[in-house]
Amino acid sequence: MKRIAVFTSGGDAPGMNACVRAVVRAAVYYGIEVYGIRRGYNGMIKGDIVKLESHSVSNIVQKGGTLLKSARSDEFRTAEGRKKAFDQLQNLGIEGLIAIGGNGTFTGAEIFFNEYGIPTVGAPGTIDNDLYGTDNTIGFDTAVNTALDAIDKIRDTADSHDRIFFIEVMGRDSGYIAIQSGLGGGAELVMVPETDTAIEEVIETLKSGWTRSKSSSIIVVAEGDEEGGANEVSIKVKEHIPYGDIKVTLLGHVQRGGSPTAQDRILASRLGVAAVEGLMAGRKNVMAGVINNEVVFTPFHDTITKRKPIHPDLIRLVNILSV
Amino acid sequence: MKRIAVFTSGGDAPGMNACVRAVVRAAVYYGIEVYGIRRGYNGMIKGDIVKLESHSVSNIVQKGGTLLKSARSDEFRTAEGRKKAFDQLQNLGIEGLIAIGGNGTFTGAEIFFNEYGIPTVGAPGTIDNDLYGTDNTIGFDTAVNTALDAIDKIRDTADSHDRIFFIEVMGRDSGYIAIQSGLGGGAELVMVPETDTAIEEVIETLKSGWTRSKSSSIIVVAEGDEEGGANEVSIKVKEHIPYGDIKVTLLGHVQRGGSPTAQDRILASRLGVAAVEGLMAGRKNVMAGVINNEVVFTPFHDTITKRKPIHPDLIRLVNILSV
Amino acid sequence: MKRIAVFTSGGDAPGMNACVRAVVRAAVYYGIEVYGIRRGYNGMIKGDIVKLESHSVSNIVQKGGTLLKSARSDEFRTAEGRKKAFDQLQNLGIEGLIAIGGNGTFTGAEIFFNEYGIPTVGAPGTIDNDLYGTDNTIGFDTAVNTALDAIDKIRDTADSHDRIFFIEVMGRDSGYIAIQSGLGGGAELVMVPETDTAIEEVIETLKSGWTRSKSSSIIVVAEGDEEGGANEVSIKVKEHIPYGDIKVTLLGHVQRGGSPTAQDRILASRLGVAAVEGLMAGRKNVMAGVINNEVVFTPFHDTITKRKPIHPDLIRLVNILSV
Amino acid sequence: MKRIAVFTSGGDAPGMNACVRAVVRAAVYYGIEVYGIRRGYNGMIKGDIVKLESHSVSNIVQKGGTLLKSARSDEFRTAEGRKKAFDQLQNLGIEGLIAIGGNGTFTGAEIFFNEYGIPTVGAPGTIDNDLYGTDNTIGFDTAVNTALDAIDKIRDTADSHDRIFFIEVMGRDSGYIAIQSGLGGGAELVMVPETDTAIEEVIETLKSGWTRSKSSSIIVVAEGDEEGGANEVSIKVKEHIPYGDIKVTLLGHVQRGGSPTAQDRILASRLGVAAVEGLMAGRKNVMAGVINNEVVFTPFHDTITKRKPIHPDLIRLVNILSV
Repeated sequence: MKRIAVFTSGGDAPGMNACVRAVVRAAVYYGIEVYGIRRGYNGMIKGDIVKLESHSVSNIVQKGGTLLKSARSDEFRTAEGRKKAFDQLQNLGIEGLIAIGGNGTFTGAEIFFNEYGIPTVGAPGTIDNDLYGTDNTIGFDTAVNTALDAIDKIRDTADSHDRIFFIEVMGRDSGYIAIQSGLGGGAELVMVPETDTAIEEVIETLKSGWTRSKSSSIIVVAEGDEEGGANEVSIKVKEHIPYGDIKVTLLGHVQRGGSPTAQDRILASRLGVAAVEGLMAGRKNVMAGVINNEVVFTPFHDTITKRKPIHPDLIRLVNILSV
Repeated sequence: MKRIAVFTSGGDAPGMNACVRAVVRAAVYYGIEVYGIRRGYNGMIKGDIVKLESHSVSNIVQKGGTLLKSARSDEFRTAEGRKKAFDQLQNLGIEGLIAIGGNGTFTGAEIFFNEYGIPTVGAPGTIDNDLYGTDNTIGFDTAVNTALDAIDKIRDTADSHDRIFFIEVMGRDSGYIAIQSGLGGGAELVMVPETDTAIEEVIETLKSGWTRSKSSSIIVVAEGDEEGGANEVSIKVKEHIPYGDIKVTLLGHVQRGGSPTAQDRILASRLGVAAVEGLMAGRKNVMAGVINNEVVFTPFHDTITKRKPIHPDLIRLVNILSV
Repeated sequence: MKRIAVFTSGGDAPGMNACVRAVVRAAVYYGIEVYGIRRGYNGMIKGDIVKLESHSVSNIVQKGGTLLKSARSDEFRTAEGRKKAFDQLQNLGIEGLIAIGGNGTFTGAEIFFNEYGIPTVGAPGTIDNDLYGTDNTIGFDTAVNTALDAIDKIRDTADSHDRIFFIEVMGRDSGYIAIQSGLGGGAELVMVPETDTAIEEVIETLKSGWTRSKSSSIIVVAEGDEEGGANEVSIKVKEHIPYGDIKVTLLGHVQRGGSPTAQDRILASRLGVAAVEGLMAGRKNVMAGVINNEVVFTPFHDTITKRKPIHPDLIRLVNILSV
Repeated sequence: MKRIAVFTSGGDAPGMNACVRAVVRAAVYYGIEVYGIRRGYNGMIKGDIVKLESHSVSNIVQKGGTLLKSARSDEFRTAEGRKKAFDQLQNLGIEGLIAIGGNGTFTGAEIFFNEYGIPTVGAPGTIDNDLYGTDNTIGFDTAVNTALDAIDKIRDTADSHDRIFFIEVMGRDSGYIAIQSGLGGGAELVMVPETDTAIEEVIETLKSGWTRSKSSSIIVVAEGDEEGGANEVSIKVKEHIPYGDIKVTLLGHVQRGGSPTAQDRILASRLGVAAVEGLMAGRKNVMAGVINNEVVFTPFHDTITKRKPIHPDLIRLVNILSV
């Protein structure tokens, strides 16, 4: 393998830049030329591809977002689009790809390999932590700490006014951000898509807190909870809670940004290096991840089809700690 | 003056605790007994009043919210309510009050003085900075920095995806948070209640940025803007912007919380001491503020009826800097 | 088990309060009475012990330091001291202890059990992460992120002036904070007690960076490195580096404080609950830890005598990434 | 004025990038060409000068340090050096300069003008806030908040162990950072170069706190205090304080870095625009500053020779609040 390219795709996540840096530095370390493709598959099709050197990635380890940018690409879903992408890569002599993204990204890469034989190793870049094959995804720890910081701030005002707050955090299919930020923030209840939380239970929790003269309550709701987001849940609850002032906050896109935490930078660095070493060892259609503190490679097929459950200890903890 | 009481009222603001601490320490310093009234006028009516010592306010200078809590009080708007409040204060021998809050709080204090002769000196505690009689209110600088931090984070993701973001910040009648966080965050445009910004201008700004291939744009909207909040504005704009992915984020209650900035702690400390010294000097129905770096006392009547304009330089700067 | 007590001991660490909260809430949840001992073994000897309820630990999950305070106790090293401690516990009917601290704490607890039969389950509270029996200690992740934040700030000024910085982080016997903050901060080299880094290698790295026109370099040094702390290393290096302005910064005690990160709060919560459940199950002389995301109990004897090595991947990464 | 250049010089300060951005955008707004000189007067001499466009300064408002870099220049102190610098500027047709820095920078600029007639308008960029002619310098508010954050963290560990901490902050000739961070951090005493604080007073304060069973004490010391830095003061005090564990922390270079606060970004933006408008209006040998919320221009001669005292209210407050 003489020449490879790296790109970011799907929703951006803090730590993507640290991962790109690691890919570039590892390639330089092993004497491989490395290119950066801008805007994911779109840039691959358009040939928006630049040579990267060691110094190209100086001073980016701490930056949020992705300097290579990211974009959806409808064109790459078409055979014509993939043909154009292949031509661009062939022109530059690129023999392998490193894709930082999620399942949509990996699905595309697998189809592309089957058609054109250019291998891809993936790295899991998404704040949602909903990828099988790694304990944590790149960006997840930062998103949790950002949500936690917001919960801490809202607790200040909730306590000052004896209020009930429903806080919605990201996670369409997964309650990872919700459970971790809720546990860390001392929430009275956390509502996640992975478990059914009946509205009656929410009402019960709030009433019980009231009885024990808790002056304020915080309920964290994953946006993809089966009862709806924070707005919907608050409406369902409101009529049953005659006391207390109920407020709703949607944390929104702030959760995607910010300088990555130490854990995200280290994970991103480790996986960037592992992805290069994986390509060099002939791997393809696999995602590099860290499980139990060791690097592992999981077939795209598994990351796409299998689900990673939330550790039952965490769900159990919320109940015990809100006593 | 032998015995005074302090309370917080209206929306909570970072720095209120620093101000309570300063009131208590100044009182102790001058040999005056000091009580804390919990939950504003409500606690005054119910007699939820505790003696405070120097150590009661240890280690609170850095805390967000208000440990004395805050609440609306419909009962204090009634003559019966105020009578009860007076009885509670008289029982404890309280001769003067320090009210940390906004215009609603000061209006109540003035009526109360006219009826019962207990003087109040106010300190401006509100994140909105919409009080005449002080350059900055307690909590404003923290709220601006919180909003700014959110804008910085959203910029990461806006840049990564070439998106347009409408970010709504607090300020029902005032664009102070919007203009300062927008300027600091490098927003392309800031929409505030104080000035008319036509929807056409918003569209023009976005198109012009597009022409100069700005990859992303951020528009900060004060919740009280005459064109509506960020959601409404985005809907009005959307159909005229065929390119670009438009997103909306409402920062919400996080802006109220958090550990106060240095400037808020210092301002709060200064005004807490000034309020005690004001009471000792026989002042009443006035708010302590800092204008041009000097403590001044402004009659409640003026803080309530007069408006403090945004400095025209700041509005002018947004235009120049978004070139 | 009807009545237990919890205390913090040794150097304080962020997350100790979250752990105390979890112990208290778990005890309440299981119907066990719980007491808090202030200032570690000193308070046990003096009977500085208070009953804790669920609400006693409200709103502390986010607080740095330890509200139960910590202290060294020479007296507990004596048989008389331990006798007094036992009398105090017996008076209150305390049947089991939960000790949040490090190896010094656990050593005392084991001796105490052998003499008086009161069982202790430990939780690992120390920023250094130098305890065998858990992947991470409580406080470690926060300390790393605090050090990282400082490195990021210093990078700003290093880059602006083309300077070389030696930054000393905590870790007398362990390079965990150094390796993680150094990796995350993009340091050119990390010097840890676990591996020998010859001064020649430091000089080589700096010269090599200079050759590739790196404008600034950051070397992170664990305070316990075999070549000495940052000051000593910088002196040894200085004469061999004719160009470049060399500066030294010792991060110091800031690394101990601050609001705990999400990971530290969750780990602390999990171990606090596990410690209570461990005591209930009859465990003694063991430390609760999390290895590979599962709770495990390790005999004090092992936590004291065995060493936990730094993962070789991390050491390897620093070399690759500083290319 | 058709063409100008901007540079940063002296110690770097957060907000310098925001100021450069404002200079560039204002120049573009007014149809003036603008160049950036790298590494201050050194780059001027070497011709390290690049054309800047509006997009050159995109996404830098939030960055610490200075992207134009800064350096000392011994050569510019010589007539030969200044001749070279003039030649470089003349080659590019540069008619005016904007210097972001401190008094050393301004002294050079005034000599340069007297010799070659190229006018300079200055902007105050230094964390120390020791410049006459502006209420605050660019970078000061950020440095204060960074120091404050460190003090908050150290308070956590001081309280946990009942310790006395001497914390040294930057300020060789000025106690601004010390007094503001000390006040904001609730320090028991602040030692600044502007006032004499006898060692006896320090001892008295500590003993008095001990008597009132304060569990911990924090003394903030400006590095330029007449009694020496924190290390020296602690040594002088130690023998007179038999109880308590005394620790010293030097905050060091972290105070120079970090993303600028809102106030620093706004001040920097305002002064960058004002400097361009000042040059356009024919001003020279003056520094733009903000006093009482209005832009003012002060002759370099005054900024260099006059001193700006600390407001006496702040010094008075420390005493009252540490009661």
